[in-house]
Amino acid sequence: MKLYDFAMAPNARRVRMFAAEKGIELETVSIDLSKREQMNDGYRAINPRLAVPALVLDDGTLITESVAICRYLDALAPEPALFGTDAKDQAIVEMWHRRVELEGMQAVADGVRNSVEFFAGRGLPGAVDFPQIPALAERGKQRVDLFFAMLNERLADSEYIAGDNFTIADIAALIGCDFAKVIKKRISEEQSHLHRWYAAVRARPSASA
Amino acid sequence: MKLYDFAMAPNARRVRMFAAEKGIELETVSIDLSKREQMNDGYRAINPRLAVPALVLDDGTLITESVAICRYLDALAPEPALFGTDAKDQAIVEMWHRRVELEGMQAVADGVRNSVEFFAGRGLPGAVDFPQIPALAERGKQRVDLFFAMLNERLADSEYIAGDNFTIADIAALIGCDFAKVIKKRISEEQSHLHRWYAAVRARPSASA
Repeated sequence: MKLYDFAMAPNARRVRMFAAEKGIELETVSIDLSKREQMNDGYRAINPRLAVPALVLDDGTLITESVAICRYLDALAPEPALFGTDAKDQAIVEMWHRRVELEGMQAVADGVRNSVEFFAGRGLPGAVDFPQIPALAERGKQRVDLFFAMLNERLADSEYIAGDNFTIADIAALIGCDFAKVIKKRISEEQSHLHRWYAAVRARPSASA
Repeated sequence: MKLYDFAMAPNARRVRMFAAEKGIELETVSIDLSKREQMNDGYRAINPRLAVPALVLDDGTLITESVAICRYLDALAPEPALFGTDAKDQAIVEMWHRRVELEGMQAVADGVRNSVEFFAGRGLPGAVDFPQIPALAERGKQRVDLFFAMLNERLADSEYIAGDNFTIADIAALIGCDFAKVIKKRISEEQSHLHRWYAAVRARPSASA
């Protein structure tokens, strides 16, 4: 199988970090989004959604959506259990992962895509162009502040976001926190619980994958 | 366990329909969002996120996020396999479910929350108020048209959205299509594949749950 990837793309990083935690080495092909290579005919034939990451299996099946790719990798290598252990734990991991996606990653993406010059006319990823919406960028930035405050409160009581174990919710949150730097949102040292968590997760080898 | 629910809330309907497909009968408590009962102190103590659905387990554990609740129910009753069967099928279901959520349910929600009078000052669900963003409502409506066209194309080749079997992706898509009526977006009969699928899925007993 082959992963279509780009170093700076947050969702591609989510897959790389997940694979690294599982000890899976993936053959990767870089699609340079900074040069809009995802719009080329060559890539269009591979993934008509014109986004990365995309995983192509040996039988030719295309899997898009970073979490769908992570679920496939999870089935190949069940340990460590990054989607949770038993039924209750899996539900709690899903809950926190989705909160991180909806309150964090989505907020950061709204902020970045709707304010950064590079994304002018490209307010959403994918095959169709949408204009930036400045009010949505502002809302995104406000929500990033709320997200950091929410995480700081949660991490006062919990070693990792979904409980005692490192999970995909931590991967998503790390990537959200790092991506937020693009719109000048950074964790403050006063958010001591979040700061403690960030330092620990950022120090994992997988964070550099 | 007890499900906090509201008949008209799309994400609550997603859980009810999923449970009905599994043959699980849930004890439900209705929180009347039309009267903003989710803001009351009583419910605030149960779910500080002030949204439905929310599942409270017998040990007191709170599970929010509709898909997290569905995953818990799936573990209780694995058949029928609404999240897919083997590793590849599960990844394909996750991919289509996420496409339906991101391209469909999210687009409809953007359209509804940012244009309907009832949601004035409540552009997002949850504990914090955000003003409506008219440009986001317009983008949402445009994206609903693209979503219907995408589904129609997909369903020309596939009985259900993720393949030969009915899955959670179909549940999410049905609910997205029905919720879109609030902003006057309806499947046209000319979209014959989507129309065929909609009639079949709408006729399932679970669609009335």
